[in-house]
Amino acid sequence: MAAEKIYRASTTAPVNIAVVKYWGKRDAKLNLATNSSLSVTLSQDDLRTLTTATCSSSYTGDDSLTLNGAPSDITGARTQACLRELRSLRQALEDADAALPKLSAMPLRLVSENNFPTAAGLASSAAGFAALVRAVADLYELRSLPTDLSLIARQGSGSACRSLFGGYVAWRHGTQADGLDSRAEQVAPASHWPQMRALVLVVSAAKKGVSSTSGMQQTVGTSDLFGERVARVVPKHMDAMEAAVAARDFASFAEVSMKDSNSFHACCADTYPPIYYMNDVSRAAVRAVEAINEAAGKTIAAYTFDAGPNAVIYYLEENSGPVVGTFYGLLRGTEGWKDEAKSYSSSSIQLDEAVSSIVKGGVSRIIMTGVGEGPTKTEQHLA
Amino acid sequence: MAAEKIYRASTTAPVNIAVVKYWGKRDAKLNLATNSSLSVTLSQDDLRTLTTATCSSSYTGDDSLTLNGAPSDITGARTQACLRELRSLRQALEDADAALPKLSAMPLRLVSENNFPTAAGLASSAAGFAALVRAVADLYELRSLPTDLSLIARQGSGSACRSLFGGYVAWRHGTQADGLDSRAEQVAPASHWPQMRALVLVVSAAKKGVSSTSGMQQTVGTSDLFGERVARVVPKHMDAMEAAVAARDFASFAEVSMKDSNSFHACCADTYPPIYYMNDVSRAAVRAVEAINEAAGKTIAAYTFDAGPNAVIYYLEENSGPVVGTFYGLLRGTEGWKDEAKSYSSSSIQLDEAVSSIVKGGVSRIIMTGVGEGPTKTEQHLA
Repeated sequence: MAAEKIYRASTTAPVNIAVVKYWGKRDAKLNLATNSSLSVTLSQDDLRTLTTATCSSSYTGDDSLTLNGAPSDITGARTQACLRELRSLRQALEDADAALPKLSAMPLRLVSENNFPTAAGLASSAAGFAALVRAVADLYELRSLPTDLSLIARQGSGSACRSLFGGYVAWRHGTQADGLDSRAEQVAPASHWPQMRALVLVVSAAKKGVSSTSGMQQTVGTSDLFGERVARVVPKHMDAMEAAVAARDFASFAEVSMKDSNSFHACCADTYPPIYYMNDVSRAAVRAVEAINEAAGKTIAAYTFDAGPNAVIYYLEENSGPVVGTFYGLLRGTEGWKDEAKSYSSSSIQLDEAVSSIVKGGVSRIIMTGVGEGPTKTEQHLA
Repeated sequence: MAAEKIYRASTTAPVNIAVVKYWGKRDAKLNLATNSSLSVTLSQDDLRTLTTATCSSSYTGDDSLTLNGAPSDITGARTQACLRELRSLRQALEDADAALPKLSAMPLRLVSENNFPTAAGLASSAAGFAALVRAVADLYELRSLPTDLSLIARQGSGSACRSLFGGYVAWRHGTQADGLDSRAEQVAPASHWPQMRALVLVVSAAKKGVSSTSGMQQTVGTSDLFGERVARVVPKHMDAMEAAVAARDFASFAEVSMKDSNSFHACCADTYPPIYYMNDVSRAAVRAVEAINEAAGKTIAAYTFDAGPNAVIYYLEENSGPVVGTFYGLLRGTEGWKDEAKSYSSSSIQLDEAVSSIVKGGVSRIIMTGVGEGPTKTEQHLA
């Protein structure tokens, strides 16, 4: 008897960092958002999840997930929702064509690895769920468009839906109760703005804060300022951001990014009890960016912060001198610099002593990266 | 020829700490606020400004002000506005009665001292302007009610108008362009709630932040969330706070205080560029108060922060054990404890290690106080 075939597909998927933030669900089960969001997909050369999905009728037992070498819980409602939806799409194909192997009935084995450490403090749930959904969709040879797959990834982790695309990606919050219009779409590809770069300052010893899922619902439930953000601030920021990206207007891109990050963290501080993701190191990074812009006489760098203290600083390659140079000047001994960083240090600007010392003492790692592609099929397999 | 008489009046005036915050002017010249505010007048036994006002036809030159032993600038528009208004009221009395000495025409000498150090980081402008206005009003034997004098003090420093009264004081923001309805009034005297106490945690090495006058107008001009605070949040907090004070409902008093402080700081963070008055020590104090309330199973302590990192913690005397005891347990070597504090340390609750260490490392002084009276005439003279 022939050995039973093992079906396999591997994909890499990216991390994304929002410049107009998702914070607040209007439906927790389907992960529908109170407002739209827009993100920049970071380059997979620097940050990516690689996932291999296999299935076989020779497998016994339940689906399994191995994450960075260790068994991971696959029974959670979110992961189950993704797998259920994907199986259902595969089953529809099998029902329509009896010749297709019944992959939907076989146990799945998923093996996933990040090329960046957990210590980087970069939430990997977006890249992880995007990779899972893409890998299984490829395994199942689904015909769904990425925007349709984003509906599934969204149910795993809201921001994961944006990692189904490269470049500049919007998650339209939608209004339907069934969530079918709450999906991601690409606003512009990475190639649209080749000069865009990102510098991540990983803040050391950061104690794990309130989980995003829990935190955002506390904000929805208790912040009196939040309604204004949803009704007026985010729509204004989304329009301005899309226009800025289309026009490659960095000053506007930066201003909206900084304002939206501030607005999101303000709503967290207005939550009861208050949620504080940024710390004194984060705020020193804000001051450093302001000083860089002040010295340049125009906005050449933007800060943004997610649900944690790490700073993500966007800038254009042509301004690497003052931007990278200034942080390299403070943090030359810190892990993560690319070789080119050293060449910019002569363009560093002088920072306030207190700001310098807080940044120096508080940043444990650097990640230099750019804008990249969405999930990419690979022949590199983990299983 | 007889020596020319020197006319003299001395007063002490208190500091006040708002529980519903003033932040935002609708008229910078008259110091009219975007929203109402409500404060607690602290006991002059612990914090007070003593001001002696003298005038004499034997004095030559301009008015002068000596503050804590050093000459101080009296030419600023704000101080000049107060003196002009006070002179004008005196002149009206002199015009109506020729027998009155023409004090309004004489140079003024003002000598003022605080019984708390500048290093306490407690803004003394409220106590200072209230003392100046009250002392000159007494010197001039004006018949104005404290609420009318609050109109004058308001022009010196907005929050000074609330220091014209003891106990619980509201500054009604008013709507008239001339500011005649933008005045302070007492909501309840100190004696209404004899158990109320305040513990101030002075945060060390705090670099001077953005000035309130400048900061609040930046918020008015750039924060998209601020309009909601003015239109809906503060009116709601004012109503709830007045009801809580009237009913001596501490849990409600505390909840509104904490929420309003959070709302104010959220609007600061939503300003562009963002204004950060609270730091990691302030946030650790928030966590400590939350832990104290959690351990008690009810709200027995409230934090509030002004335009700086110091924490002011309100509590009732009956809960001194867990409240004072817990902070005394962390900060027993710190200057400022009253003798009674030691007796509470057995009631201290256990705090998270990170919170404890940040509070221990960041608080340089303690002030234990209670609620007290408004400006009080004194025969203690500085000149």
